[in-house]
Amino acid sequence: MSFNTYGHLFRVTTWGESHGPALGATVDGCPPGIALTEADIQPWLDRRRPGQNRNTTQRQEADQVEILSGTFEGRTTGTPIQLMIRNTDQRSKDYGEIARTFRPGHADITYHLKYGIRDYRGGGRSSARETAARVAAGGVARAALAALVPDLAITGYMVQMGPRAIDRARLDLAEVPRNDFWCPDAETAKLWEDDLLALRKDHDSVGAMIELTISGTPPGLGAPVYGKLDTDLAAAMMSINAVKGVEIGEGMAAAALTGRANADEIVMGEDGPGYLSNHAGGILGGISTGQDIVLRFAVKPTSSILSPRRSITTDGEPTEVVTKGRHDPCVGIRAVPVAEAMAASVILDHLLLDRGQTGGVRGRIG
Amino acid sequence: MSFNTYGHLFRVTTWGESHGPALGATVDGCPPGIALTEADIQPWLDRRRPGQNRNTTQRQEADQVEILSGTFEGRTTGTPIQLMIRNTDQRSKDYGEIARTFRPGHADITYHLKYGIRDYRGGGRSSARETAARVAAGGVARAALAALVPDLAITGYMVQMGPRAIDRARLDLAEVPRNDFWCPDAETAKLWEDDLLALRKDHDSVGAMIELTISGTPPGLGAPVYGKLDTDLAAAMMSINAVKGVEIGEGMAAAALTGRANADEIVMGEDGPGYLSNHAGGILGGISTGQDIVLRFAVKPTSSILSPRRSITTDGEPTEVVTKGRHDPCVGIRAVPVAEAMAASVILDHLLLDRGQTGGVRGRIG
Amino acid sequence: MSFNTYGHLFRVTTWGESHGPALGATVDGCPPGIALTEADIQPWLDRRRPGQNRNTTQRQEADQVEILSGTFEGRTTGTPIQLMIRNTDQRSKDYGEIARTFRPGHADITYHLKYGIRDYRGGGRSSARETAARVAAGGVARAALAALVPDLAITGYMVQMGPRAIDRARLDLAEVPRNDFWCPDAETAKLWEDDLLALRKDHDSVGAMIELTISGTPPGLGAPVYGKLDTDLAAAMMSINAVKGVEIGEGMAAAALTGRANADEIVMGEDGPGYLSNHAGGILGGISTGQDIVLRFAVKPTSSILSPRRSITTDGEPTEVVTKGRHDPCVGIRAVPVAEAMAASVILDHLLLDRGQTGGVRGRIG
Amino acid sequence: MSFNTYGHLFRVTTWGESHGPALGATVDGCPPGIALTEADIQPWLDRRRPGQNRNTTQRQEADQVEILSGTFEGRTTGTPIQLMIRNTDQRSKDYGEIARTFRPGHADITYHLKYGIRDYRGGGRSSARETAARVAAGGVARAALAALVPDLAITGYMVQMGPRAIDRARLDLAEVPRNDFWCPDAETAKLWEDDLLALRKDHDSVGAMIELTISGTPPGLGAPVYGKLDTDLAAAMMSINAVKGVEIGEGMAAAALTGRANADEIVMGEDGPGYLSNHAGGILGGISTGQDIVLRFAVKPTSSILSPRRSITTDGEPTEVVTKGRHDPCVGIRAVPVAEAMAASVILDHLLLDRGQTGGVRGRIG
Repeated sequence: MSFNTYGHLFRVTTWGESHGPALGATVDGCPPGIALTEADIQPWLDRRRPGQNRNTTQRQEADQVEILSGTFEGRTTGTPIQLMIRNTDQRSKDYGEIARTFRPGHADITYHLKYGIRDYRGGGRSSARETAARVAAGGVARAALAALVPDLAITGYMVQMGPRAIDRARLDLAEVPRNDFWCPDAETAKLWEDDLLALRKDHDSVGAMIELTISGTPPGLGAPVYGKLDTDLAAAMMSINAVKGVEIGEGMAAAALTGRANADEIVMGEDGPGYLSNHAGGILGGISTGQDIVLRFAVKPTSSILSPRRSITTDGEPTEVVTKGRHDPCVGIRAVPVAEAMAASVILDHLLLDRGQTGGVRGRIG
Repeated sequence: MSFNTYGHLFRVTTWGESHGPALGATVDGCPPGIALTEADIQPWLDRRRPGQNRNTTQRQEADQVEILSGTFEGRTTGTPIQLMIRNTDQRSKDYGEIARTFRPGHADITYHLKYGIRDYRGGGRSSARETAARVAAGGVARAALAALVPDLAITGYMVQMGPRAIDRARLDLAEVPRNDFWCPDAETAKLWEDDLLALRKDHDSVGAMIELTISGTPPGLGAPVYGKLDTDLAAAMMSINAVKGVEIGEGMAAAALTGRANADEIVMGEDGPGYLSNHAGGILGGISTGQDIVLRFAVKPTSSILSPRRSITTDGEPTEVVTKGRHDPCVGIRAVPVAEAMAASVILDHLLLDRGQTGGVRGRIG
Repeated sequence: MSFNTYGHLFRVTTWGESHGPALGATVDGCPPGIALTEADIQPWLDRRRPGQNRNTTQRQEADQVEILSGTFEGRTTGTPIQLMIRNTDQRSKDYGEIARTFRPGHADITYHLKYGIRDYRGGGRSSARETAARVAAGGVARAALAALVPDLAITGYMVQMGPRAIDRARLDLAEVPRNDFWCPDAETAKLWEDDLLALRKDHDSVGAMIELTISGTPPGLGAPVYGKLDTDLAAAMMSINAVKGVEIGEGMAAAALTGRANADEIVMGEDGPGYLSNHAGGILGGISTGQDIVLRFAVKPTSSILSPRRSITTDGEPTEVVTKGRHDPCVGIRAVPVAEAMAASVILDHLLLDRGQTGGVRGRIG
Repeated sequence: MSFNTYGHLFRVTTWGESHGPALGATVDGCPPGIALTEADIQPWLDRRRPGQNRNTTQRQEADQVEILSGTFEGRTTGTPIQLMIRNTDQRSKDYGEIARTFRPGHADITYHLKYGIRDYRGGGRSSARETAARVAAGGVARAALAALVPDLAITGYMVQMGPRAIDRARLDLAEVPRNDFWCPDAETAKLWEDDLLALRKDHDSVGAMIELTISGTPPGLGAPVYGKLDTDLAAAMMSINAVKGVEIGEGMAAAALTGRANADEIVMGEDGPGYLSNHAGGILGGISTGQDIVLRFAVKPTSSILSPRRSITTDGEPTEVVTKGRHDPCVGIRAVPVAEAMAASVILDHLLLDRGQTGGVRGRIG
């Protein structure tokens, strides 16, 4: 990872601001010969798109991806893939106030301090809009994974919105695409609708917890002691706007557990080793076990709210800020497809790294 | 970060196994002219050293660091600094059983699957002993930070051990070095002693939660959108053995908050902008605000316990594993100095990155 | 450097194929606050553009650069700068033959072997057209250098075309922009015109030698022992299409010299140390001395010639290939602005690296 | 490549100074399961060792390599391999003069300017002694290549010393190990002995040209457009002390050639495509063809000579420098095994990169 790049062999650099002419992702290191057209990427972008339901921002962006390079006759060539998404809905408006003040909880002030200059239109580079580029890049990763590891499945879903969490007894991944919250618990999804309506009326916003289950990951991905699979997954999630915490398997709850409770006992199955539990979340010593990888991350409440907040101007004068405009009361909802995309990129990257170093051969048991 | 390397400009590669002749860290990119001798690094290693108190493993390692390169007449030269720690306490023993079985919760099985070969002696590369190298490298980072940012202070402490957390009302950082747990709450420290004794008798182990407070960080460190300061801190913590989750500021609790509650309002102080709260944990948009950076991470309970656990042999036969030997019932204790060292390396790295790109000049306010 | 990226802190990733919709460069790590609009980049592209004179290919490309991100109100923001150049002159034609054969001396066969698929239209990714993206990125580097090191000047010029070299006694850098060959010797330039005409008639092509003089580089750029300034300059030049050799200072001729002849004696000047000669080419131990950096590289003759050459088809059948189309008989001419651009990127990158590690402070003499 | 690291997946960081306690290489990313003990590396070091013949420096270093990590029971484990070589022959001496003056042609002055501090003992980090670490790392690469590509052979040899070049008509690689110059032409080797003796008497030194032939490289290694195989080979050679130029295939001579003369015509052989010539030196478009890779590089004459040269002191006062001590009159001789080692590391690195991205599958012809 450097400034705007993630990945080792499968490397993604995103670029673009919220209100510039376009944004996108430069994807290098993709395996050649993978079937890939815009039609393979667009559905993932459509899932992330704001304005698709009433629970996310009303901004209407077509978010049409264009592949500018790296494919030929519908297949990847192994050269850099440029994915561009034009910004089509930059409403012209007076940015006077936003240009001269720092919104609390936003990157306005840190960008100003660091760079001495900032594109204040819609948050510029720090806008959640940047995540569209990650989703597009994730679409490339998904296409490669579909060819290399057909059984792999990455499913994200929201398990908590504000103080209200799902009932794990009702968790059903089949429910996820059926509601506007990527919620695997139909009953909780209904309650969240009411919660969100109340928040909107109250000019407030709310945080969320997202969970990711990755099934079908081959064992052996990852490496000691910084190129760990969990390290890279954690970094990928933490790099998403507004994410404040990330955990794998038992996660933060592991602090309260005993070793006896936490041990995932091993048994021999017909197809190789199996485990009687998955407290580890599918990763041991930074390397995948082959079990489901399970991770969660917390998204803070949108900082852009209609309630006035104390702040200062660029001249250092006190002021009050009310963030008008089209903003999600719960940005966590849109974080779901973003996290899936990041996970896809990380898994593919580690798959390529592993076969680079080891040839992809696995140690024998039995 | 690649396999065993972290950092962008200040780059650390650790090497070595638990029971090999030595382990260490190759540190490249350190600023020149920094006062540095073994005496600057050894105290940090002494804090981490097992056997220093009865709550950590009884293995006796001198953990004497030797600087093999990169300094001259007590100052860094800007060339690679090689830090070596000899392993002096490799008790000869029969590794027969450990060689042929996989300990549940350990990296034994994933290393075997990935590499087809593993140094099973003491966990080899996956041993927590590797963290000594990180602490040594962190000592170099601390020396550079002391010269470049004298007011910076990094303090780690344990805030929870098993189900018992500290009482935040009694939190006093001055208490941290006064007990064997790096506990900032003297009363809780006493209770933990009893807890640990009971666990030992019960042949069990326990997880922990560590918190880090970094004060004096200049604003402007970090970068969008993957070279974020919180991303790199999260990755650094997650890369430590047994860590299962990491959070910044409000962290996982942010999921339950509203935007109104979470906003850190901004006011103008005499020395520049200030904030009325620090829900963000000192980082906005991936860039430091200048406030205290506050992060926490969870360490799982030691997997090496005296209680029998089901597993398999390398032949795929069922077996039971009891991990004898010298093991911490709470590895979280030793994670405290390790986390401090990782944080020091990350902060220094971002300091150098920032002055590389921006010259270290800050945007003016007022 | 990875697959399609160069630079450490100032990182450039180029993308795009000869006959795709567009090509460009993703530039990350640029200092913020640098004055930059398309008008700062376009002149460099215009210098490289094919079709500007009769000595280069007749393909007519506008090569208009668009800045899609990373600037705001005419200044860089420190975020990724996306530079896009649309391909406007992709004549539709029958690619049947070129699709099924491998042109000798081209990357056709190696791309096919490596990737199993290749964009054969105009050479795809291996086309010299890719260098337009480097020139655009170099324009960004030039803008930053103009702000940071105003006295720096990078001048490229052709010193040999085929067997005919310039007369060094007549070398005058003021002549360089006055002829179509970037030739610093007006008389030789005239002879080259005749040479080129003869080659064209003969359906042949010719190699060239380019020299670069970089004056005004501050001392202290570069680092042992792989991040050397000469290493990175050599790699940058060697990465340009058709380059087969690169040398610094005395270069290959150093093999024949004695130590006494090669020593650059040092004297103290009013502004610091000076040298009585520059056999080293401005770099000692991988670090700039402050003298002119002088390097040369050789470009092979264009492989695309109208003379028939033996080859095979993708079916392994023997065939003859004649490369029709618009091709420079001497690609070395167009390599001049490309080399300047690469040098600008390398120098800026090392300037940022140096101030990252050392703060840009220089050791005192006297 | 960063400051002291080369390689992408197979990554080598060298460390250490000429007169410190030790120097070495940290090697990460080696494939697991490769047979490797000190006995596999030592022979390569013995070839490079100064003092092995009367033509190289009389300094006597045992140069015994110790493997401190990364192997287990004689095989690599896939974790970092630490290779340490103790410095045993640091004669104590008065460094007063060398500490206060800058030797012309050395890195003394650039290190001083850049870092403000330098380890002047024996040249510190800039000593050719650093190359022992590269040779050790190359020994690891050779072991891995022997397992993965048994037919690969890397042979370095000196083709010119001072003004006297070998007679290519007498070139016989079997001669290379039979003389003290790695000279493939027995008659020229004898003349060089006399040349060297004369130079020694004259207190002078001389440059050299080294050639490397790499046979058995699989096709398909390398990548556009900066991760090219020739780019990385050129960088590897240029990073060796005293190297001033590098060329592939026809190299600098390509400038004088015509396209017709330079084309390597392609024919179909029984085992796949073949070529009627090898002007390209085994690399097209940055990717290996499968032919012999042929490269050359020039080494400047040793700057350390007994003849007095003008210079200045650290106080800026004029002085004369005579470099006493044990120095090779032709450092080019020792560069031969160093270059082989660097080539081995680059080829292995690209082999791993290629199988990471493409799986190592080759496109079919016929």
